[in-house]
Amino acid sequence: MFVKTSYRVKFFDTDTMGVVHHSNYIRWFETGRVEFLRKLGITLNEMMDDGILFPIVDVSAKFHAPAKFDDDLEITTIAEALTKVKMSFRYEIRRRGEDKILVEGKTTNVFTVDGKICRLPEKYFERLTAEEK
Amino acid sequence: MFVKTSYRVKFFDTDTMGVVHHSNYIRWFETGRVEFLRKLGITLNEMMDDGILFPIVDVSAKFHAPAKFDDDLEITTIAEALTKVKMSFRYEIRRRGEDKILVEGKTTNVFTVDGKICRLPEKYFERLTAEEK
Amino acid sequence: MFVKTSYRVKFFDTDTMGVVHHSNYIRWFETGRVEFLRKLGITLNEMMDDGILFPIVDVSAKFHAPAKFDDDLEITTIAEALTKVKMSFRYEIRRRGEDKILVEGKTTNVFTVDGKICRLPEKYFERLTAEEK
Amino acid sequence: MFVKTSYRVKFFDTDTMGVVHHSNYIRWFETGRVEFLRKLGITLNEMMDDGILFPIVDVSAKFHAPAKFDDDLEITTIAEALTKVKMSFRYEIRRRGEDKILVEGKTTNVFTVDGKICRLPEKYFERLTAEEK
Repeated sequence: MFVKTSYRVKFFDTDTMGVVHHSNYIRWFETGRVEFLRKLGITLNEMMDDGILFPIVDVSAKFHAPAKFDDDLEITTIAEALTKVKMSFRYEIRRRGEDKILVEGKTTNVFTVDGKICRLPEKYFERLTAEEK
Repeated sequence: MFVKTSYRVKFFDTDTMGVVHHSNYIRWFETGRVEFLRKLGITLNEMMDDGILFPIVDVSAKFHAPAKFDDDLEITTIAEALTKVKMSFRYEIRRRGEDKILVEGKTTNVFTVDGKICRLPEKYFERLTAEEK
Repeated sequence: MFVKTSYRVKFFDTDTMGVVHHSNYIRWFETGRVEFLRKLGITLNEMMDDGILFPIVDVSAKFHAPAKFDDDLEITTIAEALTKVKMSFRYEIRRRGEDKILVEGKTTNVFTVDGKICRLPEKYFERLTAEEK
Repeated sequence: MFVKTSYRVKFFDTDTMGVVHHSNYIRWFETGRVEFLRKLGITLNEMMDDGILFPIVDVSAKFHAPAKFDDDLEITTIAEALTKVKMSFRYEIRRRGEDKILVEGKTTNVFTVDGKICRLPEKYFERLTAEEK
Protein backbone atom coordinates (compact mmCIF):
# COMPACT_ATOMS: atom_id res chain seq x y z
CA MET A 1 0.00 0.00 0.00
CA PHE A 2 1.12 3.55 -0.64
CA VAL A 3 -0.29 7.03 -0.14
CA LYS A 4 0.54 10.17 -2.11
CA THR A 5 0.50 13.62 -0.56
CA SER A 6 1.43 16.89 -2.20
CA TYR A 7 3.33 19.94 -1.01
CA ARG A 8 4.15 23.29 -2.57
CA VAL A 9 7.67 24.43 -1.55
CA LYS A 10 7.72 27.63 0.52
CA PHE A 11 10.41 30.31 0.79
CA PHE A 12 11.19 29.25 4.34
CA ASP A 13 11.92 25.71 3.11
CA THR A 14 14.73 26.91 0.86
CA ASP A 15 18.19 28.22 1.68
CA THR A 16 20.89 30.51 0.34
CA MET A 17 21.94 27.83 -2.18
CA GLY A 18 18.56 28.36 -3.87
CA VAL A 19 17.24 24.88 -3.07
CA VAL A 20 15.19 23.17 -0.37
CA HIS A 21 17.15 22.67 2.84
CA HIS A 22 17.65 18.91 3.19
CA SER A 23 16.20 18.81 6.73
CA ASN A 24 12.79 19.69 5.31
CA TYR A 25 12.48 16.49 3.30
CA ILE A 26 12.74 14.64 6.62
CA ARG A 27 9.76 16.72 7.81
CA TRP A 28 7.78 15.87 4.68
CA PHE A 29 8.44 12.16 5.26
CA GLU A 30 6.55 12.67 8.51
CA THR A 31 3.70 14.41 6.72
CA GLY A 32 3.46 11.42 4.38
CA ARG A 33 3.44 9.04 7.34
CA VAL A 34 0.69 10.95 9.14
CA GLU A 35 -1.49 10.99 6.03
CA PHE A 36 -0.81 7.28 5.38
CA LEU A 37 -2.08 6.46 8.86
CA ARG A 38 -5.08 8.77 8.48
CA LYS A 39 -6.07 6.77 5.37
CA LEU A 40 -6.14 3.68 7.61
CA GLY A 41 -8.35 5.46 10.12
CA ILE A 42 -5.55 6.14 12.59
CA THR A 43 -5.06 9.68 13.81
CA LEU A 44 -2.12 10.44 16.00
CA ASN A 45 -4.27 12.57 18.28
CA GLU A 46 -6.38 9.49 19.07
CA MET A 47 -3.22 7.50 19.85
CA MET A 48 -1.87 10.32 22.04
CA ASP A 49 -5.23 10.50 23.84
CA ASP A 50 -4.75 6.79 24.58
CA GLY A 51 -1.30 7.55 26.00
CA ILE A 52 0.57 5.99 23.10
CA LEU A 53 3.51 7.83 21.56
CA PHE A 54 5.34 6.67 18.44
CA PRO A 55 8.92 7.98 18.50
CA ILE A 56 11.03 7.73 15.39
CA VAL A 57 14.12 5.57 15.99
CA ASP A 58 15.91 5.92 12.68
CA VAL A 59 15.81 7.82 9.43
CA SER A 60 17.90 7.73 6.29
CA ALA A 61 17.65 9.73 3.09
CA LYS A 62 19.40 10.01 -0.24
CA PHE A 63 19.27 13.38 -1.97
CA HIS A 64 19.46 12.88 -5.74
CA ALA A 65 18.42 16.29 -7.02
CA PRO A 66 17.16 19.47 -5.39
CA ALA A 67 13.65 20.86 -5.23
CA LYS A 68 13.21 24.63 -5.45
CA PHE A 69 10.85 27.37 -4.30
CA ASP A 70 7.27 26.89 -5.51
CA ASP A 71 7.89 23.35 -6.81
CA ASP A 72 4.78 21.22 -6.60
CA LEU A 73 6.05 18.07 -4.90
CA GLU A 74 4.47 14.67 -4.51
CA ILE A 75 5.51 12.55 -1.54
CA THR A 76 4.82 8.84 -1.97
CA THR A 77 4.76 6.95 1.33
CA ILE A 78 5.11 3.17 1.09
CA ALA A 79 4.58 0.75 3.96
CA GLU A 80 7.54 -1.57 4.48
CA ALA A 81 6.63 -3.26 7.75
CA LEU A 82 3.62 -2.53 9.93
CA THR A 83 3.72 -4.72 13.03
CA LYS A 84 2.78 -4.50 16.68
CA VAL A 85 6.29 -3.35 17.52
CA LYS A 86 7.21 -0.99 14.69
CA MET A 87 6.20 0.90 11.58
CA SER A 88 8.72 1.09 8.75
CA PHE A 89 8.03 3.29 5.76
CA ARG A 90 9.82 4.21 2.54
CA TYR A 91 9.37 7.56 0.84
CA GLU A 92 9.90 8.92 -2.66
CA ILE A 93 9.67 12.63 -3.42
CA ARG A 94 9.17 13.83 -6.98
CA ARG A 95 7.95 16.93 -8.75
CA ARG A 96 4.35 16.23 -9.68
CA GLY A 97 4.12 14.61 -13.08
CA GLU A 98 7.80 13.69 -13.25
CA ASP A 99 9.30 10.20 -12.91
CA LYS A 100 12.63 11.30 -11.49
CA ILE A 101 13.01 10.76 -7.78
CA LEU A 102 14.50 13.84 -6.10
CA VAL A 103 14.77 12.34 -2.62
CA GLU A 104 14.15 8.89 -1.19
CA GLY A 105 14.17 7.80 2.41
CA LYS A 106 13.27 5.32 5.11
CA THR A 107 12.08 5.65 8.68
CA THR A 108 11.24 3.37 11.59
CA ASN A 109 8.91 4.29 14.44
CA VAL A 110 8.19 2.29 17.55
CA PHE A 111 5.34 2.58 20.06
CA THR A 112 5.73 3.68 23.65
CA VAL A 113 3.55 4.08 26.74
CA ASP A 114 4.97 6.11 29.63
CA GLY A 115 8.29 6.26 27.81
CA LYS A 116 8.62 2.47 27.53
CA ILE A 117 8.41 0.49 24.33
CA CYS A 118 5.06 -1.29 24.04
CA ARG A 119 3.15 -3.47 21.60
CA LEU A 120 0.51 -1.64 19.59
CA PRO A 121 -2.98 -2.28 21.05
CA GLU A 122 -5.22 -4.52 18.96
CA LYS A 123 -7.64 -1.73 17.97
CA TYR A 124 -4.90 0.15 16.16
CA PHE A 125 -3.17 -2.94 14.81
CA GLU A 126 -6.39 -4.06 13.12
CA ARG A 127 -6.66 -0.77 11.28
CA LEU A 128 -2.96 -0.74 10.46
CA THR A 129 -3.18 -4.12 8.74
CA ALA A 130 -6.77 -3.96 7.40
CA GLU A 131 -5.46 -3.26 3.93
CA GLU A 132 -3.60 -6.57 3.70
CA LYS A 133 -6.59 -8.72 4.47
CA MET B 1 17.78 46.31 32.03
CA PHE B 2 18.89 44.57 28.84
CA VAL B 3 20.55 41.26 27.97
CA LYS B 4 22.65 40.49 24.89
CA THR B 5 22.72 37.07 23.28
CA SER B 6 24.54 36.03 20.14
CA TYR B 7 23.63 33.79 17.24
CA ARG B 8 25.50 32.64 14.15
CA VAL B 9 23.14 32.41 11.14
CA LYS B 10 22.68 28.88 9.76
CA PHE B 11 21.88 27.76 6.22
CA PHE B 12 18.44 26.63 7.31
CA ASP B 13 17.69 30.17 8.55
CA THR B 14 18.19 31.65 5.08
CA ASP B 15 16.07 31.42 1.95
CA THR B 16 16.31 31.55 -1.83
CA MET B 17 16.65 35.35 -1.71
CA GLY B 18 20.02 34.82 0.00
CA VAL B 19 18.96 36.35 3.32
CA VAL B 20 17.54 35.23 6.65
CA HIS B 21 13.84 34.35 6.41
CA HIS B 22 12.00 36.99 8.43
CA SER B 23 10.15 34.42 10.58
CA ASN B 24 13.47 33.46 12.16
CA TYR B 25 14.01 36.86 13.76
CA ILE B 26 10.75 36.26 15.63
CA ARG B 27 12.30 33.03 16.93
CA TRP B 28 15.45 34.85 18.02
CA PHE B 29 13.35 37.38 19.92
CA GLU B 30 12.19 34.38 21.97
CA THR B 31 15.74 33.23 22.52
CA GLY B 32 16.59 36.69 23.82
CA ARG B 33 13.56 36.61 26.13
CA VAL B 34 14.46 33.18 27.54
CA GLU B 35 18.04 34.29 28.25
CA PHE B 36 16.84 37.55 29.78
CA LEU B 37 14.68 35.60 32.24
CA ARG B 38 17.49 33.13 32.95
CA LYS B 39 19.66 36.10 34.00
CA LEU B 40 16.95 36.94 36.56
CA GLY B 41 16.99 33.36 37.85
CA ILE B 42 13.79 32.35 36.08
CA THR B 43 13.83 29.25 33.92
CA LEU B 44 10.79 28.43 31.89
CA ASN B 45 11.07 24.77 32.87
CA GLU B 46 10.61 25.75 36.52
CA MET B 47 7.54 27.79 35.60
CA MET B 48 6.11 24.94 33.53
CA ASP B 49 6.77 22.55 36.43
CA ASP B 50 4.63 24.94 38.52
CA GLY B 51 1.88 24.74 35.90
CA ILE B 52 2.43 28.27 34.61
CA LEU B 53 2.54 28.90 30.89
CA PHE B 54 3.42 32.26 29.33
CA PRO B 55 1.77 32.54 25.90
CA ILE B 56 2.79 35.32 23.59
CA VAL B 57 -0.16 37.58 22.76
CA ASP B 58 1.39 39.95 20.27
CA VAL B 59 4.53 40.53 18.27
CA SER B 60 5.64 43.21 15.87
CA ALA B 61 8.85 43.63 13.92
CA LYS B 62 10.44 46.05 11.51
CA PHE B 63 12.98 44.65 9.07
CA HIS B 64 15.48 47.33 8.15
CA ALA B 65 18.24 45.30 6.49
CA PRO B 66 18.82 41.60 5.98
CA ALA B 67 21.20 39.28 7.78
CA LYS B 68 22.95 36.57 5.78
CA PHE B 69 24.39 33.10 6.21
CA ASP B 70 27.17 32.92 8.81
CA ASP B 71 26.55 36.45 10.10
CA ASP B 72 27.41 36.77 13.76
CA LEU B 73 24.33 38.44 15.23
CA GLU B 74 23.76 40.10 18.55
CA ILE B 75 20.22 40.16 19.94
CA THR B 76 19.62 42.86 22.55
CA THR B 77 16.55 42.19 24.70
CA ILE B 78 15.23 45.17 26.64
CA ALA B 79 12.53 44.99 29.33
CA GLU B 80 9.64 47.37 28.68
CA ALA B 81 7.14 46.27 31.30
CA LEU B 82 7.50 43.40 33.74
CA THR B 83 4.38 43.12 35.85
CA LYS B 84 2.26 40.43 37.46
CA VAL B 85 0.04 40.30 34.39
CA LYS B 86 2.42 40.66 31.47
CA MET B 87 5.98 40.83 30.21
CA SER B 88 6.73 43.28 27.41
CA PHE B 89 10.12 43.28 25.72
CA ARG B 90 11.80 45.19 22.92
CA TYR B 91 14.51 43.66 20.74
CA GLU B 92 17.28 44.98 18.54
CA ILE B 93 19.27 42.70 16.25
CA ARG B 94 22.62 43.82 14.87
CA ARG B 95 25.72 42.25 13.39
CA ARG B 96 28.22 42.04 16.23
CA GLY B 97 30.31 45.18 16.41
CA GLU B 98 28.01 47.22 14.17
CA ASP B 99 25.69 50.04 15.26
CA LYS B 100 23.11 49.56 12.53
CA ILE B 101 19.94 47.84 13.64
CA LEU B 102 18.93 45.14 11.16
CA VAL B 103 15.67 44.20 12.86
CA GLU B 104 13.75 45.59 15.82
CA GLY B 105 10.69 44.21 17.48
CA LYS B 106 8.33 44.04 20.42
CA THR B 107 6.46 41.23 22.13
CA THR B 108 3.98 40.82 24.96
CA ASN B 109 3.53 37.61 26.95
CA VAL B 110 0.90 36.92 29.60
CA PHE B 111 0.79 34.20 32.25
CA THR B 112 -1.74 31.36 32.34
CA VAL B 113 -2.66 28.46 34.59
CA ASP B 114 -4.91 25.75 33.14
CA GLY B 115 -5.39 27.90 30.05
CA LYS B 116 -6.68 30.89 32.01
CA ILE B 117 -4.88 34.19 32.45
CA CYS B 118 -3.38 34.47 35.93
CA ARG B 119 -1.24 36.83 37.96
CA LEU B 120 2.40 35.82 38.25
CA PRO B 121 3.07 34.18 41.66
CA GLU B 122 5.12 36.25 44.07
CA LYS B 123 8.20 34.01 43.92
CA TYR B 124 8.66 34.73 40.23
CA PHE B 125 7.58 38.35 40.44
CA GLU B 126 10.29 39.03 43.01
CA ARG B 127 12.97 37.71 40.71
CA LEU B 128 11.48 39.48 37.69
CA THR B 129 11.71 42.86 39.42
CA ALA B 130 14.78 42.31 41.62
CA GLU B 131 16.85 44.39 39.23
CA GLU B 132 14.79 47.51 39.76
CA LYS B 133 15.16 47.53 43.51
CA MET C 1 -10.32 40.98 -2.45
CA PHE C 2 -9.32 38.08 -0.27
CA VAL C 3 -7.93 34.59 -0.82
CA LYS C 4 -8.32 31.58 1.46
CA THR C 5 -5.68 28.90 1.79
CA SER C 6 -5.71 25.90 4.07
CA TYR C 7 -3.05 24.20 6.14
CA ARG C 8 -3.02 21.12 8.34
CA VAL C 9 -0.79 21.66 11.41
CA LYS C 10 2.25 19.39 11.56
CA PHE C 11 4.14 18.06 14.58
CA PHE C 12 7.13 20.23 13.72
CA ASP C 13 4.91 23.33 13.89
CA THR C 14 4.03 22.69 17.52
CA ASP C 15 6.11 23.02 20.67
CA THR C 16 6.43 21.63 24.18
CA MET C 17 3.45 23.73 25.31
CA GLY C 18 1.29 21.57 23.03
CA VAL C 19 0.40 24.38 20.64
CA VAL C 20 1.67 25.86 17.39
CA HIS C 21 4.84 27.90 17.87
CA HIS C 22 3.90 31.51 17.18
CA SER C 23 6.66 32.01 14.58
CA ASN C 24 4.86 29.59 12.28
CA TYR C 25 1.81 31.79 11.88
CA ILE C 26 4.17 34.41 10.44
CA ARG C 27 5.25 31.78 7.89
CA TRP C 28 1.64 30.99 7.03
CA PHE C 29 0.94 34.68 6.42
CA GLU C 30 3.58 34.39 3.69
CA THR C 31 1.91 31.31 2.25
CA GLY C 32 -1.35 33.26 2.08
CA ARG C 33 0.42 36.18 0.37
CA VAL C 34 2.05 33.93 -2.23
CA GLU C 35 -1.27 32.26 -3.07
CA PHE C 36 -3.05 35.64 -3.19
CA LEU C 37 -0.55 36.84 -5.79
CA ARG C 38 -0.79 33.57 -7.73
CA LYS C 39 -4.54 34.15 -8.03
CA LEU C 40 -3.70 37.48 -9.70
CA GLY C 41 -1.36 35.73 -12.12
CA ILE C 42 1.81 36.83 -10.33
CA THR C 43 4.34 34.16 -9.38
CA LEU C 44 7.30 35.17 -7.32
CA ASN C 45 9.58 33.07 -9.52
CA GLU C 46 8.63 35.25 -12.52
CA MET C 47 9.39 38.39 -10.48
CA MET C 48 12.72 36.97 -9.31
CA ASP C 49 13.56 36.04 -12.93
CA ASP C 50 12.97 39.73 -13.73
CA GLY C 51 15.37 40.71 -10.96
CA ILE C 52 12.68 42.01 -8.64
CA LEU C 53 12.70 41.05 -4.98
CA PHE C 54 9.92 41.94 -2.53
CA PRO C 55 11.37 42.10 1.00
CA ILE C 56 9.03 42.28 3.94
CA VAL C 57 9.54 45.49 5.92
CA ASP C 58 7.16 44.96 8.80
CA VAL C 59 4.93 42.37 10.38
CA SER C 60 2.61 42.39 13.35
CA ALA C 61 0.43 39.67 14.81
CA LYS C 62 -2.02 39.17 17.63
CA PHE C 63 -2.36 35.67 19.03
CA HIS C 64 -5.88 35.20 20.42
CA ALA C 65 -6.02 31.42 20.83
CA PRO C 66 -3.68 28.58 19.98
CA ALA C 67 -3.91 26.07 17.14
CA LYS C 68 -2.83 22.48 17.83
CA PHE C 69 -1.39 19.49 16.03
CA ASP C 70 -3.53 18.27 13.13
CA ASP C 71 -5.85 21.31 13.22
CA ASP C 72 -7.22 22.12 9.80
CA LEU C 73 -6.54 25.84 9.48
CA GLU C 74 -7.85 28.39 7.04
CA ILE C 75 -5.71 31.43 6.33
CA THR C 76 -7.64 34.39 4.90
CA THR C 77 -5.41 36.92 3.15
CA ILE C 78 -6.93 40.34 2.56
CA ALA C 79 -5.39 43.08 0.41
CA GLU C 80 -5.05 46.39 2.26
CA ALA C 81 -2.97 48.41 -0.16
CA LEU C 82 -1.51 47.24 -3.45
CA THR C 83 0.48 50.03 -5.03
CA LYS C 84 3.61 50.45 -7.12
CA VAL C 85 5.66 50.95 -3.99
CA LYS C 86 4.24 48.44 -1.52
CA MET C 87 1.90 45.57 -0.82
CA SER C 88 0.05 45.56 2.49
CA PHE C 89 -1.98 42.55 3.54
CA ARG C 90 -4.06 41.54 6.54
CA TYR C 91 -4.47 37.93 7.64
CA GLU C 92 -6.97 36.00 9.71
CA ILE C 93 -6.33 32.41 10.75
CA ARG C 94 -9.21 30.21 11.90
CA ARG C 95 -9.95 26.52 12.27
CA ARG C 96 -11.91 25.58 9.19
CA GLY C 97 -15.63 26.03 9.77
CA GLU C 98 -15.19 28.18 12.89
CA ASP C 99 -15.81 31.91 13.19
CA LYS C 100 -13.30 32.55 15.96
CA ILE C 101 -10.08 34.16 14.82
CA LEU C 102 -7.07 32.41 16.34
CA VAL C 103 -4.45 34.76 14.95
CA GLU C 104 -4.61 37.97 12.98
CA GLY C 105 -1.78 39.91 11.43
CA LYS C 106 -0.50 42.50 8.99
CA THR C 107 2.52 42.72 6.73
CA THR C 108 4.06 45.21 4.34
CA ASN C 109 6.37 44.27 1.47
CA VAL C 110 8.24 46.64 -0.81
CA PHE C 111 9.88 45.98 -4.18
CA THR C 112 13.61 46.10 -4.84
CA VAL C 113 15.98 45.77 -7.78
CA ASP C 114 19.66 45.25 -7.02
CA GLY C 115 18.92 45.87 -3.35
CA LYS C 116 17.34 49.27 -3.94
CA ILE C 117 13.70 50.12 -3.51
CA CYS C 118 11.95 50.39 -6.87
CA ARG C 119 8.48 50.97 -8.28
CA LEU C 120 6.71 47.85 -9.45
CA PRO C 121 6.90 47.53 -13.26
CA GLU C 122 3.65 48.13 -15.12
CA LYS C 123 3.19 44.50 -16.21
CA TYR C 124 2.95 43.36 -12.60
CA PHE C 125 1.03 46.39 -11.39
CA GLU C 126 -1.70 45.74 -13.95
CA ARG C 127 -2.20 42.22 -12.67
CA LEU C 128 -2.01 43.34 -9.06
CA THR C 129 -4.86 45.83 -9.55
CA ALA C 130 -6.88 44.02 -12.24
CA GLU C 131 -9.41 42.96 -9.64
CA GLU C 132 -10.35 46.51 -8.75
CA LYS C 133 -11.19 47.53 -12.29
CA MET D 1 39.86 14.81 14.24
CA PHE D 2 36.67 15.93 15.89
CA VAL D 3 35.06 19.24 16.82
CA LYS D 4 32.54 19.89 19.59
CA THR D 5 29.85 22.54 19.32
CA SER D 6 27.12 23.30 21.81
CA TYR D 7 23.46 24.19 21.45
CA ARG D 8 20.73 25.10 23.92
CA VAL D 9 17.37 23.62 22.83
CA LYS D 10 14.72 26.22 21.98
CA PHE D 11 10.92 25.99 22.23
CA PHE D 12 10.61 26.01 18.45
CA ASP D 13 12.85 22.92 18.28
CA THR D 14 10.42 20.86 20.36
CA ASP D 15 7.01 19.45 19.52
CA THR D 16 3.74 18.44 21.13
CA MET D 17 5.33 15.22 22.41
CA GLY D 18 7.50 17.39 24.66
CA VAL D 19 10.77 16.50 22.93
CA VAL D 20 13.00 17.85 20.17
CA HIS D 21 11.53 17.21 16.72
CA HIS D 22 13.84 14.71 15.03
CA SER D 23 14.37 16.88 11.94
CA ASN D 24 16.26 19.38 14.07
CA TYR D 25 19.07 16.98 14.90
CA ILE D 26 19.71 16.81 11.14
CA ARG D 27 20.08 20.61 11.20
CA TRP D 28 22.49 20.45 14.11
CA PHE D 29 24.63 17.92 12.22
CA GLU D 30 25.05 20.70 9.66
CA THR D 31 26.01 23.19 12.35
CA GLY D 32 28.67 20.74 13.53
CA ARG D 33 29.96 20.32 9.98
CA VAL D 34 30.17 24.07 9.37
CA GLU D 35 32.10 24.61 12.61
CA PHE D 36 34.40 21.65 11.85
CA LEU D 37 35.31 23.24 8.53
CA ARG D 38 35.76 26.67 10.13
CA LYS D 39 38.34 25.11 12.49
CA LEU D 40 40.26 24.04 9.37
CA GLY D 41 40.10 27.58 8.00
CA ILE D 42 37.36 26.81 5.50
CA THR D 43 34.28 29.03 5.48
CA LEU D 44 31.39 28.10 3.25
CA ASN D 45 31.00 31.73 2.20
CA GLU D 46 34.51 31.64 0.74
CA MET D 47 33.68 28.43 -1.15
CA MET D 48 30.40 29.91 -2.43
CA ASP D 49 32.28 33.05 -3.53
CA ASP D 50 34.51 30.70 -5.54
CA GLY D 51 31.39 29.16 -7.12
CA ILE D 52 31.68 25.88 -5.24
CA LEU D 53 28.60 24.37 -3.63
CA PHE D 54 28.67 21.28 -1.40
CA PRO D 55 25.29 19.50 -1.57
CA ILE D 56 24.52 16.80 0.92
CA VAL D 57 23.87 13.49 -0.84
CA ASP D 58 22.90 11.28 2.08
CA VAL D 59 22.11 11.40 5.75
CA SER D 60 21.22 8.78 8.33
CA ALA D 61 20.43 9.08 12.01
CA LYS D 62 19.56 6.87 14.95
CA PHE D 63 17.48 8.43 17.71
CA HIS D 64 18.29 6.71 21.01
CA ALA D 65 16.74 9.09 23.51
CA PRO D 66 15.06 12.48 23.25
CA ALA D 67 16.42 15.90 24.11
CA LYS D 68 14.05 18.43 25.67
CA PHE D 69 13.52 22.18 25.90
CA ASP D 70 16.47 24.05 27.40
CA ASP D 71 18.78 21.01 27.31
CA ASP D 72 22.39 22.02 26.87
CA LEU D 73 23.54 19.77 24.02
CA GLU D 74 26.99 18.97 22.75
CA ILE D 75 27.36 17.96 19.11
CA THR D 76 30.55 16.04 18.35
CA THR D 77 31.46 16.06 14.66
CA ILE D 78 33.97 13.44 13.56
CA ALA D 79 35.64 13.31 10.13
CA GLU D 80 35.22 9.96 8.44
CA ALA D 81 36.55 10.69 4.95
CA LEU D 82 37.75 14.04 3.64
CA THR D 83 38.78 13.68 0.01
CA LYS D 84 38.69 15.74 -3.16
CA VAL D 85 35.36 14.20 -4.09
CA LYS D 86 33.47 14.01 -0.82
CA MET D 87 33.28 14.83 2.87
CA SER D 88 31.86 12.18 5.19
CA PHE D 89 31.20 12.99 8.82
CA ARG D 90 29.81 11.17 11.83
CA TYR D 91 27.96 12.95 14.63
CA GLU D 92 27.17 12.21 18.25
CA ILE D 93 24.77 14.37 20.25
CA ARG D 94 24.79 14.26 24.05
CA ARG D 95 23.66 16.40 26.93
CA ARG D 96 26.75 18.25 28.09
CA GLY D 97 28.58 16.28 30.73
CA GLU D 98 26.76 13.02 30.02
CA ASP D 99 28.19 9.93 28.30
CA LYS D 100 24.94 8.69 26.86
CA ILE D 101 24.50 9.35 23.16
CA LEU D 102 21.04 10.73 22.42
CA VAL D 103 21.40 10.80 18.65
CA GLU D 104 24.07 9.63 16.25
CA GLY D 105 24.29 10.17 12.52
CA LYS D 106 26.28 10.24 9.31
CA THR D 107 26.31 12.50 6.29
CA THR D 108 28.07 12.71 2.95
CA ASN D 109 28.56 15.91 0.97
CA VAL D 110 30.02 16.27 -2.51
CA PHE D 111 31.36 19.34 -4.28
CA THR D 112 29.76 20.96 -7.33
CA VAL D 113 30.48 23.81 -9.73
CA ASP D 114 27.62 25.00 -11.94
CA GLY D 115 25.53 22.09 -10.71
CA LYS D 116 28.08 19.45 -11.77
CA ILE D 117 30.14 17.32 -9.44
CA CYS D 118 33.72 18.54 -9.26
CA ARG D 119 36.94 17.77 -7.44
CA LEU D 120 37.75 20.09 -4.55
CA PRO D 121 40.35 22.70 -5.61
CA GLU D 122 43.79 22.24 -4.07
CA LYS D 123 43.60 25.34 -1.87
CA TYR D 124 40.66 23.90 0.05
CA PHE D 125 41.92 20.32 -0.01
CA GLU D 126 45.15 21.39 1.67
CA ARG D 127 43.25 22.95 4.54
CA LEU D 128 40.84 20.04 4.75
CA THR D 129 43.67 17.57 5.24
CA ALA D 130 46.18 19.78 7.07
CA GLU D 131 45.32 18.09 10.34
CA GLU D 132 46.46 14.67 9.14
CA LYS D 133 49.93 15.79 8.13
